[in-house]
Amino acid sequence: MKIGVLGPRGTYSELAARSYFKDKGEFVFYPMITDVAKAVEHGEVQAGVIPVESLREGTVGEALDALAWTDVRVQAEIVLPVSHSLLGVGGTTLEKITQVLSHPQALAQCRDFLREKLPNAELIEMASTAKAAEQVGKLRQQHMAAIGPKELAKLYGLDVLVEIQSGETNVTRFLCLSKRDERRTGNDKTSIVFYTDTDRPGILHEILGEFASRGINLTKIESRPSKKALGDYLFFIDFEGHREEDKIKKALSEIKEKTAMLKVVGSYPKRF
Amino acid sequence: MKIGVLGPRGTYSELAARSYFKDKGEFVFYPMITDVAKAVEHGEVQAGVIPVESLREGTVGEALDALAWTDVRVQAEIVLPVSHSLLGVGGTTLEKITQVLSHPQALAQCRDFLREKLPNAELIEMASTAKAAEQVGKLRQQHMAAIGPKELAKLYGLDVLVEIQSGETNVTRFLCLSKRDERRTGNDKTSIVFYTDTDRPGILHEILGEFASRGINLTKIESRPSKKALGDYLFFIDFEGHREEDKIKKALSEIKEKTAMLKVVGSYPKRF
Repeated sequence: MKIGVLGPRGTYSELAARSYFKDKGEFVFYPMITDVAKAVEHGEVQAGVIPVESLREGTVGEALDALAWTDVRVQAEIVLPVSHSLLGVGGTTLEKITQVLSHPQALAQCRDFLREKLPNAELIEMASTAKAAEQVGKLRQQHMAAIGPKELAKLYGLDVLVEIQSGETNVTRFLCLSKRDERRTGNDKTSIVFYTDTDRPGILHEILGEFASRGINLTKIESRPSKKALGDYLFFIDFEGHREEDKIKKALSEIKEKTAMLKVVGSYPKRF
Repeated sequence: MKIGVLGPRGTYSELAARSYFKDKGEFVFYPMITDVAKAVEHGEVQAGVIPVESLREGTVGEALDALAWTDVRVQAEIVLPVSHSLLGVGGTTLEKITQVLSHPQALAQCRDFLREKLPNAELIEMASTAKAAEQVGKLRQQHMAAIGPKELAKLYGLDVLVEIQSGETNVTRFLCLSKRDERRTGNDKTSIVFYTDTDRPGILHEILGEFASRGINLTKIESRPSKKALGDYLFFIDFEGHREEDKIKKALSEIKEKTAMLKVVGSYPKRF
């Protein structure tokens, strides 16, 4: 079984994929979230793992676009505690570091640490934490450090200089994409995306009413530009229950009547 | 009058600030959106301009956090067409470019151009488009190019190699922050942020009902992690009307009863 993952080797997406699939597959690495989703859509891989939101930094926009615009389903959610470490070449110390490389979200998540311990370091944004560690491992300069999971140290020949955060304070939610979603387990969640081509007051209220009147609990709501005009949105909603339950079937069929586009992205076991 | 802007010189935020304030102030540049908001809160500057959403890439999370967690008001919204250009040193050509530097959002916005014209170039993410142009201007290598507004070319001694997009296809919305919001003009918008400490089904539906039942049109809704637990959200809503209008006063006072925290971030003239 081939599993598409946001690359390069050593990203948090790979850690999430390993925690879910154990060693039951071959990982294929892609440079962008969109590429992972397209690989699933075209059958190059049988599943794909992408990050969708982090407790600290919020939703990953590119992941929502992938759910809306590629023909894939959500098969599972994976929740992973994220622990950042500062990684550098052997023999360096905190005092020598003048450049810190990482993904913008990881730099943002370590803002307090950086302000306190490395207030004068230059922050360099990279496409992923793994890319940052790869770069530091390649250049081998004592003034450079990368921020990422400590698993990257071994992969790129680096030392763990500081373990910055404990996993308790930051978790990331990943989605496992595939061509099909999951059967009912009795403790499920469903993700949908819809578009209304009217901006009359109350349309979103009416749609939420289809859930509220049936006692269906929403776990997330997000709007995202439709890219047609500023202020024109796609809505992403997660709620508790499976799309094959009667009350959910009824809610979705009412919502379909009220919207210009409704896509049921998938039902899958609830993990948090 | 001092105006805080996301720096360095030449960012789209500076262009937005110039389009709004003309030449009526002195610009002070800050490295992060949070820093601009804090400078306004502490009175170091009398106003601050930050990006809040782009048509293509969606909401800027750091801007929402700044609205929620600093004591500032929104005084105005500024909508700016964003046109990206490819900038390089004199004498270079598209064929020589192997590295492209820019802000992640600008690289994402130019994805189609890059795939078609520079499919093999390495993409390097920088903290801002201006930082990218500054770097290319400093190193003066023929194989490097930056993506950003063409105004950056003059500032950093570069040539415009390609004008990538027309402004029609991409616009960015900026907010002007200050200690006070604006008086009623008759064509206004209001931004609020609230937090509910209950997850009972229907709470968001009830809150939206306060707007729907009074015919108040929502222009945006966004959820964002409260950073207390995954799935626990702050909600950001923009709607038409001024906080001093009777029906809006009534809606807000009902919502205050239903929420654990409600902040009226400000009322300001509607620009789109």
